[in-house]
This record gives sequence, structure tokens and C-alpha cells, in this order.
Amino acid sequence: MATDATQSEAPDAYDELMERYGRISSIRDASGVLSWDQQVMMPEGGTPARSQQLSALSATSHELFTADEFGDALEAAESVDLDDRREAALREIRREYERSIRVDTDLVERISRTTSEALPVWTEAKESDDFEQFAPVLEDLVELKREYAIQIDPDADPYAVLFEDYEPYLGLDTAEEVLTRLRDELVPLIEEIEDSDTDLASPFSGTYPEADQEALARDTLDLVGYDWDRGRLDVSAHPFTSGNQFDARITTRFDEEDPLGALTSTVHEFGHATYALGLPDDAYGTPLGDARDLSVHESQSRLWENHVGRSMPFWNLLTPTVEERLGVEATPQEFYEAANRIYPDNRIRVEADELTYHMHIVLRFEIERDLISGDLAVEDVPRVWNEKMDDYLGIVPENDAEGCLQDIHWSHGSFGYFPTYSLGSVLAAQLYAKAEADLDGLDGDIEVGEFGDLREWLTENVHRHGKRYRTPELVREATGAEYSADAFLDYATGKFTALYDL
Amino acid sequence: MATDATQSEAPDAYDELMERYGRISSIRDASGVLSWDQQVMMPEGGTPARSQQLSALSATSHELFTADEFGDALEAAESVDLDDRREAALREIRREYERSIRVDTDLVERISRTTSEALPVWTEAKESDDFEQFAPVLEDLVELKREYAIQIDPDADPYAVLFEDYEPYLGLDTAEEVLTRLRDELVPLIEEIEDSDTDLASPFSGTYPEADQEALARDTLDLVGYDWDRGRLDVSAHPFTSGNQFDARITTRFDEEDPLGALTSTVHEFGHATYALGLPDDAYGTPLGDARDLSVHESQSRLWENHVGRSMPFWNLLTPTVEERLGVEATPQEFYEAANRIYPDNRIRVEADELTYHMHIVLRFEIERDLISGDLAVEDVPRVWNEKMDDYLGIVPENDAEGCLQDIHWSHGSFGYFPTYSLGSVLAAQLYAKAEADLDGLDGDIEVGEFGDLREWLTENVHRHGKRYRTPELVREATGAEYSADAFLDYATGKFTALYDL
Repeated sequence: MATDATQSEAPDAYDELMERYGRISSIRDASGVLSWDQQVMMPEGGTPARSQQLSALSATSHELFTADEFGDALEAAESVDLDDRREAALREIRREYERSIRVDTDLVERISRTTSEALPVWTEAKESDDFEQFAPVLEDLVELKREYAIQIDPDADPYAVLFEDYEPYLGLDTAEEVLTRLRDELVPLIEEIEDSDTDLASPFSGTYPEADQEALARDTLDLVGYDWDRGRLDVSAHPFTSGNQFDARITTRFDEEDPLGALTSTVHEFGHATYALGLPDDAYGTPLGDARDLSVHESQSRLWENHVGRSMPFWNLLTPTVEERLGVEATPQEFYEAANRIYPDNRIRVEADELTYHMHIVLRFEIERDLISGDLAVEDVPRVWNEKMDDYLGIVPENDAEGCLQDIHWSHGSFGYFPTYSLGSVLAAQLYAKAEADLDGLDGDIEVGEFGDLREWLTENVHRHGKRYRTPELVREATGAEYSADAFLDYATGKFTALYDL
Repeated sequence: MATDATQSEAPDAYDELMERYGRISSIRDASGVLSWDQQVMMPEGGTPARSQQLSALSATSHELFTADEFGDALEAAESVDLDDRREAALREIRREYERSIRVDTDLVERISRTTSEALPVWTEAKESDDFEQFAPVLEDLVELKREYAIQIDPDADPYAVLFEDYEPYLGLDTAEEVLTRLRDELVPLIEEIEDSDTDLASPFSGTYPEADQEALARDTLDLVGYDWDRGRLDVSAHPFTSGNQFDARITTRFDEEDPLGALTSTVHEFGHATYALGLPDDAYGTPLGDARDLSVHESQSRLWENHVGRSMPFWNLLTPTVEERLGVEATPQEFYEAANRIYPDNRIRVEADELTYHMHIVLRFEIERDLISGDLAVEDVPRVWNEKMDDYLGIVPENDAEGCLQDIHWSHGSFGYFPTYSLGSVLAAQLYAKAEADLDGLDGDIEVGEFGDLREWLTENVHRHGKRYRTPELVREATGAEYSADAFLDYATGKFTALYDL
């Protein structure tokens, strides 16, 4: 128990810290708006000014966060007794603070400069299918990020430290265990599917104008219950979600020959937006009003994309709308098959289906882990990439542009990011299984477009907590069980065994 | 001449200051983007987060600007010999700096809080036509802004100090002289027009769908030469321009019964955008890359709106496009007459024509000047407003909602802003007369849609200088003469005497 003296100081010290943190958080959110604008609205010529604005905001929020005054305010808040929620908020700020102050400003600037330079180099290398062009800057980035990890924690595995930038609490061991299990159990399943004679329906064969696809996307968002008073749908080169509990916007892109692409990406981004919109309003600008990290975020998008959006009940619901908007006549079963077709010969991660996707992730995970540890040299990446593609999917990319140069992440120095995509899918299955168990007749609800109970379940069990719980605790709170790949593997095996008649 | 020592320090001290100033300037520009987004794109629910983001940016840039380190950097830069351009940049920063540091933080916060509170009070008072509701907060604002002016310069006329927030160099005496002349010479002209039997054409009588009006606005922007790679056209409740030399966006609004409204407002905002786009790229983030203040900005919008957009050659050019987009058949002369019709019985400033507009400004100027000096009590504003409307335009508003409550400016505490509208119109005429004299056959160019020479003339003589010259110097540089209302009165008298056969 705290003494009276510390109790009475508690709200003051905590509130003062949150005022400082709120300022920093608002500046970061302002960057988010500028970045959304840059990708969605900004005319091409605006880049020079926008770059300066973004770097001014980033430098300013970094300086405010790492200033002595901030450290003092944090210590003062920590020195008094607080309730669990506030303690959790402090834990998150402390964690982030330590990671910020331990890294030399000089290194931060070198990383920032190198990633800025790397982007055009990667773009050019990808365009001209020339890995050697990208290799030197990739080497620099590996080196810089290894140094960054060592500065944060000299005693830890550097890759584990980098991974914690994106998923702070699951731990690299758990990640590795889950990814290895996915590899070991999905590779045979994918092989079986490849060998199967089952022919799934392909109702989409023509071209579908953007305007019709956009109307379909908006209808779909209406059906799942997107709150247009707190969101928007726009078009960008790569779909993304941006915002907070008051304003969470999604983007998509349209390919006239692939209407399922925009549709599934819209439902995916809706999942991200729903998470943001479910965060508590009154905690805006504090860790309790901010989303848990990337794997939990991805669990929300994958849950809506796959467990809802690729389900039979969903296609029972959506079929008339697809028929109306795109003029395609097919049965719900046929649409369902089209949405779930597996393409083992696809080489591109962002175009991958629900199963082979994870092989793309496992391969990247294994490569970046070995790059950071020094077990793999940059020059060997193309060879190892192609070998692993052959091992896991039985195909070899025709060139590096559609092989190891396809993703932007490494040019950002984002090593440790990829695993969170698969970890999120795994969590999506675990959460969805629990929601199904808790909610009576969820399939029936989906079939008639009643998503309220599911949205509420997710808000109640995930969204409203913000960063209050560490990831494993959040999983335990929501599902009563430890984080595990069981639910995902059950789901995937069951679904595709049935679909492909295995 | 500077010694060698100071010469060699010069670039360092200057560059260091500009780096600090550039950061602050970029944060302010980021606020501009957030504010544009709020008015154009943001979903309604986003307000709470956006308000916090904007206030975080505003507090941060204010703190950076008023910090001791900034003052020291400014002094260091001032202590060395610099070329004229750099000296001018320092003059502008020093001026702004002094105005910032002289005002107590406490007063800044009180003004900010009071204007936040005033906005909904004014909105409600206007809606319910109840000046008494607004009066107490208006009294507070008058008092606070008077105190603000006294803190900046206890020896000056407080209203003159406030006016200099918007137009720093023309001086209140000049403003008063020009406004008085406008009143004395335009009141009789407007009366003559009112008594005239001339009947101007009214080719617009139907309703014109927004989509058609938007197509017309885009065509018109194409004709005058808007650079779409550095701009956008969108819709907002009140038309405005936002941005910088890399990205200057305009908005408009559409009234289905008044297609001329959107058209003239689009050309007006184009003038503002052209100014921003003409500022030098390499001076972005410094006073040399920033626009001179409100009256010069308004000169650019009014020049395009009135001297180009309401001219006979322009209507010779635009008539086929209007016919095509809106399906209205009329002669260029008829469109020209419609665009120049005078409405002496209009009570609303933002709907006013080219002549009566200035009476709306004179009346606001006289009232706010007397409010700040204490010669007029807030409670007497409605009575005095109506008396002046009667004196200058021969009409009395039916109620305060369309009288003294019509404009938002005073609820922002913006006393001294209104005069810049008229001062800008006056400067527009002076600049246009010089451009006409310098450029051979400008009318002929406009008639065939060749605006390049005019745009270049404006960039060469106004835009590219940024804030290098004080306003009167800029006028002298551009026109070879002192700032004066002569050109405007010549233009207005000539044009309307002819149009109305006086």
C-alpha cells in the first residue's frame, strides 16, 4: 500500500506524464495524417515539402520523447502507487522509452539516412532485376540494424530485439516454434492440394470496371458495419489503414481483372480499422488508447478477411450484391470456391492465398534471422531464397524481381516485421474459434448480415484494452488459453481438406 | 564592410537559424495539411483527435520559436554581415519573434481558450439570431486582444498593432485613407447604379447540377493554367487555398442555382494558389519562400477573380465552355453582364459584388476599430451596424443573423483582418494596370487563353520575392509607384459607368 503522501501525488505525476506523452502521441498521429495524405491525396509535386514536414515532426517527437524532462516525468510517475491500468500504461512507455534512449542519435540518423537512400536503390534494382545493385545497401542496413539491436540490449539475440520492435511480448522462441509448425504442417497440405484433381469454380473471367468494384467495396463495408462517420474508403498504390479511434480510414486498389483482390483487401483493412475504432475514446493519446502491436493488429484484419470474408455464410450473404454490382451470375458455393482457391505456383507474397502465404513468410523469416545473425551473407540471399521457394512450394522464381527483391520491407530496414503477418493469422483463428464458441449461431448471423455480436465480442475482448495487457496475457484474457497454432491448423486443415476433397 | 572573421561566420549562423526556423515552418505547414484535411476529407467523428493534434503542433511550434535557443540563434545571425536577401529574411523573423515573445504565455492561452469557446457560441447566436448570446464573449475577445496589442507595443494604437498581424507594413493610416476614399467615391457610384434604368442580362435561370459545375471549374482552371501536378480542386463549406510552392490546393463550393458563385470563387482561389506556386522552391521554409501577408495575397486572388475573370476578353474565351458544360446559350456580352451585376440590396459580404463588397469592409473596419479603441461598446454593435448599412448601401439587415453576426472573424478574435480584403482589391487594380502597360495585347492574349505572360509577370514582380520586400517596397518594385487607390477607382468607375450607361 502506498502512503497517503504518494497516493496524493499519484494523479499529478501520472497526469503530467500523460500530458507530455499525449503531445508526442498527437505529433506522431499528425505524421500519420500527412502520410495518409501523401499516399492518397497529395499531388505528385508535393514531395519535397512533405518530406521536410514529416522529418520535422519525426525529429521533434523524438526529441520530446528522449528529453531529460520526459525521463524525469516518467520516473516521477513510476515512483507512486497506481492502479493496474495506469501501471500498464507506464510499463509500455518505459519499454518504448528505454528502446529510444539506448540508441545513439548518430545511429538513428544513419539508419534514417540509409533507408532514405535505400528506397530508390531498391526500386531501381527491382525494376531492372539486378540484386547486385541492392546488395551493398542491404549489407549496410543489416549492419546498422544489428548495431541498433546491440545498443538496445547487448546480451540478447539481435534478431530477437529487432522482432520486438514489431511484436514486443510473444518472444522469438514462440514465433519460431509457430512458424516451424506452419511450415511442417502446411507444406504437406499444399502438396496434397497440388496433387488433387478437384477443380474449384472460377466465376470471374471478364474485366470489371473500377466504379463497379468500388460500389461493391462500399456495399460490403456497409454490410460488415463500417462506421462511415469515423472512416473513409480511398484508393492508394498499396492498401493500408490509418488513424485512431475517432477516424480510421482504409484504402484499397482495383485490378479490373481481379475483383476478388480489392474485395478481400477491403475486408482485411476493415479489420484493422475496426480495431482502431474499438480503442477507448477517453484514453486517446495514451498507451491504453493505442493498439497492441502488429501481430494483434494483423489478427483483426485476418479474422475479417479469412474467417469472415472467405467463409461460406459470408458468400451466402454477399452473392446477390456481387451479382448486382459486377453482373456475375454464380452460386454462393462457386464464389466461395473462387475466394478460397490455392495457387501453389504463385511467387508473389501479396498475391498469395490463405495457405501458401505462410510459406512466403517462413522463408523471409529464416532468411532475415540468418542475415542478422551473420549465418547468411547478403550475396547468398537470391540463391537461398530460390532454394527455399523450391523446398516449400515446389517453384522457383523466374528472376530476383519476383523473388528476393519483391518486397519493400528490407529496404526500410524492417527486419523482424514479416513474422507478425503469420503470427497474426494464427491468432485470428484462435480468437475466432473462441468467438464462435461464445456466440450462439455466428454463422447464421453472418448469413443474414448481423455482425454486431462479433464486432462487440472483439471490442470487448481485444480492442478496448489498448496496450493494457502484454500479447500473451491478452490472448489468455480473450480465449482462456495460451497462444498457439492449434486453432489455425485445425481450421486450415478442415477447410481445405473439405474444399479439395482430400 | 564586415571583417573577415564575421564574414566567415555568416553562413554558419544564418544557416543554423534557418534550420531552426525551417523546422518550425514545417510544423506549421503540417498544421496546414491537417486543417485542409479537416475541412475537406476528415469524417465528422474525427474532431476530438484532430483538435488534439492541431493543438500539439501549435504549442510545439510556439515553444520552439520562443525558446531561448531560438533567440540566441537569431542574435548570432544578426551579428554578422549578410546580403540584402538574408538581411530581409532576418528582419521578418525578428519581427515575428518580437511579437511572439512579448505576449505572455498565459494571455496566449486565454485567447486560445476563449476563441475555442466563442466559436460554438457564435454559431448558436447566429442560428438563433440572438446577438445578446454572443455579446459577452465578444466583449472578452475585445478585451483580450486589446491587452495582446498593448503587450506587443504599449505605445502604439492597439488596433494598429492588431492590423499589423495581418498586414505588417502598409500602416493603419494608409489603410484608413484608402478605405475612406473607397467609401466616399463608391457610395455615390453605387447610388447612381441603383438609380440607373440599365437592365443587365441574366442568362442563368435554371438549376445546374454540381457535376456540371465541377467540370466547368476544372475546364476553367485548365484554361488559366493551374498546375495539377502541384494542386487539387475539392469541395469545402467555405472556399480556401492551402499549401506552398510544391502543393497549393484550392477548394470551392457549388450552389445549384448560382453557377457564377463557384466559377468566380474558383478563379479567386486560383489566384491565391498561383501566388503560393510562384514562391521560390529553394527558399521553402524561410521567409524568402513564404508569401507576403494578407493584402498582397488578396491582390493575387482579386486580380484573377475581377480583372481577369470578370473581364470581357475572359468571357469571350469562356463562353463556349459555359455553353457546353451548363447548356446555357448566351452571348459573351450577356455572360459578362451577369458576372458584373451590382446588387446594392445584398446584405451578405461573401455574396457581395465587386463594388458593394468594399462597403461591407469599410463598415466592419470602422466598427472593429472603435471596439478596440473603446469608442464603441459591444452592446451598440447591432445598432451601429444597421445605421452604417443604411448610410453606405441604403439597406438595413432584417436581423442580426444577416447583420453583425454574419461573419466568423470576430469569433476568432480576428480584429484587423477585414481591411486586408479591400486593400488587396486596390492593389490588384494597381498591379493589373502595370501588367497591362508592360505586356503588349494582354486582352488579346486572354481572349485566346494565353495566360503565360501574365502569370510570368506576376511571378517575376510579386511571387518570387517571398517576404523579401516590405509591402510598400514590393508595390514600388512591381509598379514603380506608391501604393494607392487611383488604379482601382479608375478601373471601377470606368467599368461600371460603361456597363450601366451612367
